[in-house]
Amino acid sequence: MKEIVILADGEFPEHKLPLGLLRESKCVVCCDGAAASLDKAGMTPFAIVGDLDSLDDKLRQKYAHILIFDSCQETNDLTKAFRYSLSFDPKSITILGATGKREDHTLGNIYLLCDYAAETKSELTMCTNHGIFRVIQKSGIYDSCAGMQVSFFSMEVEQRVRSKGLKYPLDDVIFDKWWKATLNECKGDHFELELSLDAPLIMYSSHK
Amino acid sequence: MKEIVILADGEFPEHKLPLGLLRESKCVVCCDGAAASLDKAGMTPFAIVGDLDSLDDKLRQKYAHILIFDSCQETNDLTKAFRYSLSFDPKSITILGATGKREDHTLGNIYLLCDYAAETKSELTMCTNHGIFRVIQKSGIYDSCAGMQVSFFSMEVEQRVRSKGLKYPLDDVIFDKWWKATLNECKGDHFELELSLDAPLIMYSSHK
Repeated sequence: MKEIVILADGEFPEHKLPLGLLRESKCVVCCDGAAASLDKAGMTPFAIVGDLDSLDDKLRQKYAHILIFDSCQETNDLTKAFRYSLSFDPKSITILGATGKREDHTLGNIYLLCDYAAETKSELTMCTNHGIFRVIQKSGIYDSCAGMQVSFFSMEVEQRVRSKGLKYPLDDVIFDKWWKATLNECKGDHFELELSLDAPLIMYSSHK
Repeated sequence: MKEIVILADGEFPEHKLPLGLLRESKCVVCCDGAAASLDKAGMTPFAIVGDLDSLDDKLRQKYAHILIFDSCQETNDLTKAFRYSLSFDPKSITILGATGKREDHTLGNIYLLCDYAAETKSELTMCTNHGIFRVIQKSGIYDSCAGMQVSFFSMEVEQRVRSKGLKYPLDDVIFDKWWKATLNECKGDHFELELSLDAPLIMYSSHK
């Protein structure tokens, strides 16, 4: 069971947490354009996925044996890398480099995490230089630590959430504005969420 | 009629466009925490707005004459700076430094632009190191240039939009996923939008 790290072509990992995950991974699946950044940082991809048109000739030759060509126009490179990763039935998929740079890509990629969660039972996270996105799909008790800064985003405006263990209880907040359930804090080593709908909730926790 | 630039405490302007706007502005309203970055870059704020607790003693003394203390716990510093700016009935408000760094702040601030648009008739934009966000509030013809990369985000899932002059016509797209109307392109010096609802649409155009 592989633990896959996907490297997208947004802001390259600089924070010790995503950079550590990238350095320690034995299985980095690179989106097309990110391969040059990884190579420049002295690391080697496991595979490079995409339509490969943003790869220069030198890298195309160097990595000829691990190029996965996918010319589909309906999906972006991150989705191509995700679908390729699924073929290994991985234990976990950690997405790096999916935010920063163009904000329309950032917004799209954050939403895609929800779509991906519906397609896999692998542990799925998106780790940036500033925090970690996770998808919460059902009511339950979740690990945390006291003082952890958290924000929640619902992709379904009808979703109602109740919480225990958060500094500001969610209390059926109406998710009609993206800032509605942001800038909260965990009080202890776990917190509890009760979701009214079977619809994904994105949880973001900032690095210390 | 002032042309106000608000500097928030996200990623500091580096791209020539936002950095030029910042340098040329005679009226930079700084969110609390951003004042140190502006000062470090050798520029002087017109006012510093917030609860002022992230300002060190030295800057607090240096800028004592332009500190606008607002301790409201219900709004963030960007909103405080925006409300303060409105008191000048400005011709334009340009928000810089509102994205980058923590992604939950980025998402919240992008949404806030919609809220702000409902409160003012000033020309309102958010300029980042990667692109510009604008709020479109009604059907009409909008300036562009051929090849301009654009994305649209609707805050109202029921909104239906038809377009002329875009490479991929919007054709009543359903805005149920954030990536639904992203990565489009303008074909000429203008494009036309027809909105079904009186609800804001966020337009993002990337810098060249």
